Amino acid sequence: MRIDIISLFPEFIRSFYSHSIIGRARKAGILDLDVTNPRQFTYDNHHMADDTIYGGGHGMLMKAAPLFAAVESVRREVPKRRIIFLGPAGSTFTQEKARQLATYEQLIFICGHYEGVDYRVEKYLADETVSVGDYVLTGGEIPAMIVTDAVARMLPGVLGTSAGAMDDSFYHSLLEYPQYTKPATFRQWSVPTVLTSGNHKKIAEWRRLAALHRTQKLRPDLLVKNSFAASPYIFPPKEQKGK
Amino acid sequence: MRIDIISLFPEFIRSFYSHSIIGRARKAGILDLDVTNPRQFTYDNHHMADDTIYGGGHGMLMKAAPLFAAVESVRREVPKRRIIFLGPAGSTFTQEKARQLATYEQLIFICGHYEGVDYRVEKYLADETVSVGDYVLTGGEIPAMIVTDAVARMLPGVLGTSAGAMDDSFYHSLLEYPQYTKPATFRQWSVPTVLTSGNHKKIAEWRRLAALHRTQKLRPDLLVKNSFAASPYIFPPKEQKGK
Repeated sequence: MRIDIISLFPEFIRSFYSHSIIGRARKAGILDLDVTNPRQFTYDNHHMADDTIYGGGHGMLMKAAPLFAAVESVRREVPKRRIIFLGPAGSTFTQEKARQLATYEQLIFICGHYEGVDYRVEKYLADETVSVGDYVLTGGEIPAMIVTDAVARMLPGVLGTSAGAMDDSFYHSLLEYPQYTKPATFRQWSVPTVLTSGNHKKIAEWRRLAALHRTQKLRPDLLVKNSFAASPYIFPPKEQKGK
Repeated sequence: MRIDIISLFPEFIRSFYSHSIIGRARKAGILDLDVTNPRQFTYDNHHMADDTIYGGGHGMLMKAAPLFAAVESVRREVPKRRIIFLGPAGSTFTQEKARQLATYEQLIFICGHYEGVDYRVEKYLADETVSVGDYVLTGGEIPAMIVTDAVARMLPGVLGTSAGAMDDSFYHSLLEYPQYTKPATFRQWSVPTVLTSGNHKKIAEWRRLAALHRTQKLRPDLLVKNSFAASPYIFPPKEQKGK
């Protein structure tokens, strides 16, 4: 997959190139990632990428022309391509959306900045607007990293085992069960005994119940959304033998 | 405000130090930001910060001891301090939460990585777990940047004018109205005439209606949540004179 990020802050985006899973995916040749600065496509003496707001308002707005030119310079003629504007006025990014985006050949992310971006970018250049959550950020750079990271994890061959991605929270619309590593007792807190019992059936059962219990407690909306609500499992985990 | 980020990837976090609003807040002495690597607090020959999972499972889990030690090394004795674990099994981060966190004297963000983190960190070290959205990421670093950015914007003196933060989407629980900058006509697309009319009353009215219309179309849940539903304004913006 090819991902192009359009950003006024290419150095910040580049710091992300070698980060963890992204670095691994790039080295393996699975992900081809690049950043393009729209300021390259400004032709006045000061290379201004922004200007004042029609109708008045604080701050500056990113101009349409440099963003159109930047996207057009990286856009490839591939059947499955998606141009995404990262901004608050979009559909909310979810794991389901990450799965969909992982099927594209090219993704282009447009990062807004300053007070905002000329609306013609969102309306006529982008295929859609995606928001990573209901909060206000300074720019689209961190959201672009979020989406790139979530999508890269879904590409075949990126995670060591495909099971890794499937175990994670949200893949099955449940929060992940609590996990523990050595030591068995840290300060005064011990690992639940069932996990050291070696009884795989009981461990699987405990984990399933713990995941449901945690989801029910913290994010009951996930259960309702996925109609787990009627499941007989939707009770607090019972005490395990030896716990 | 003091923010400490606990992360196995300090270089990636440092790339964010000078980014945009964060750089500005640090230079102005409003935000004191630092990163601490829990690997400093490992005492075996290989400085292992992770280990295998009790009960079996793919990958490795971050150990509790180095994270407890890292947090304890930066924890200050101030009345308003909050230790936050960034993970999927938490309450969802919102603008309201950013406003609350902006009132603390010290925030400590714990970034998980690998397959996960020993649950004792979440349960006994963190005051709470915060999730930035319903998607799976490789680590807590990008979420820590999200929360830091959203909180930094709320600190008095960080944005040029306090109006900047208040105009943004979500501040009034509405998506922002479309904004335009020069040129008035880009390719075949022109700016709505009302915005170049100079009539400030009409411009304000158009913007309010456009914000409501956009919110109704894209995120009706925000309207319901804030009981704007009964508002007489909740119709598509009327055609403006001269539009």
